[in-house]
Amino acid sequence: MADTELLALAERLQGLCLGRGLTVATAESCTGGLLASIITDVPGSSGYFRGSVVAYADATKVALLDVPEATLEAHGAVSAQTARAMAIGIRARLDVSMAVSVTGISGPDGGSDEKPVGLTYIGLADGGTSDVRRYTWTGDRAANRHDSARAALRWLIERAETPPPGEGP
Amino acid sequence: MADTELLALAERLQGLCLGRGLTVATAESCTGGLLASIITDVPGSSGYFRGSVVAYADATKVALLDVPEATLEAHGAVSAQTARAMAIGIRARLDVSMAVSVTGISGPDGGSDEKPVGLTYIGLADGGTSDVRRYTWTGDRAANRHDSARAALRWLIERAETPPPGEGP
Repeated sequence: MADTELLALAERLQGLCLGRGLTVATAESCTGGLLASIITDVPGSSGYFRGSVVAYADATKVALLDVPEATLEAHGAVSAQTARAMAIGIRARLDVSMAVSVTGISGPDGGSDEKPVGLTYIGLADGGTSDVRRYTWTGDRAANRHDSARAALRWLIERAETPPPGEGP
Repeated sequence: MADTELLALAERLQGLCLGRGLTVATAESCTGGLLASIITDVPGSSGYFRGSVVAYADATKVALLDVPEATLEAHGAVSAQTARAMAIGIRARLDVSMAVSVTGISGPDGGSDEKPVGLTYIGLADGGTSDVRRYTWTGDRAANRHDSARAALRWLIERAETPPPGEGP
């Protein structure tokens, strides 16, 4: 199902993770399972991919990802704070080497002046750190979801290539 | 990303659920997020879809779906018993009207004489009942995942059209 570019990224990630003994999980809001679907399109992905939580409602982010309700209330579901909490939450729940999260407004509805359609935060948590990157995509719903999945895969690859001290071989 | 047929099924499901006030969640093993991805391809899906757990490891099925370890040990991850437990587990965790689960062997590896590639169990849990259906797909990995997602969507539609007594309007 995945397009050739995304599938190639997933294959590259898998090769790196299997080679270095890294495990991965994802927490997805706006991508809605697309990221996990691409990763698991590749045969053998069960060797490093532990799973994903598709949290399409605030209650799901709280129940399955341990995102604090106070974070959602103070900053909203589409925020750097929520992205970070989602990544930290799924990493802890599934005990993986590194976890990535995606939360954004894919459109066509849901945008505002402050948070326009296309605004997306991606979080990454590994051994000792967590980081967040902010994007503003300019495509339609399908393109925004695609771009988010691509950015998440690229970041995982980047991190797998240069694991922090104490992680990996 | 989803093909036209699957997207049309997701649109039909969404119309039924929004019209009847039903909420949905999914628990996916072999489809790896494909089912959730198709459902959330449709704008407005957040009105009824609460989320999915992609449980690509036994430990994830236990940690996030409350599948009993004894069930996995006795029957294996690809079994009617595990499919039923996954559906019941995600329905309870996310408090939805109905939940569907998919566990199977997509291939190309992982098959055996007893459990060949293509063997797939789909579970459905709603208000008072849970059911399991068994399929043996004969395609390649991508086709098997596609067929599983289609069967799950069709079953959700069937159930949304005829909710059991006490559910829906």
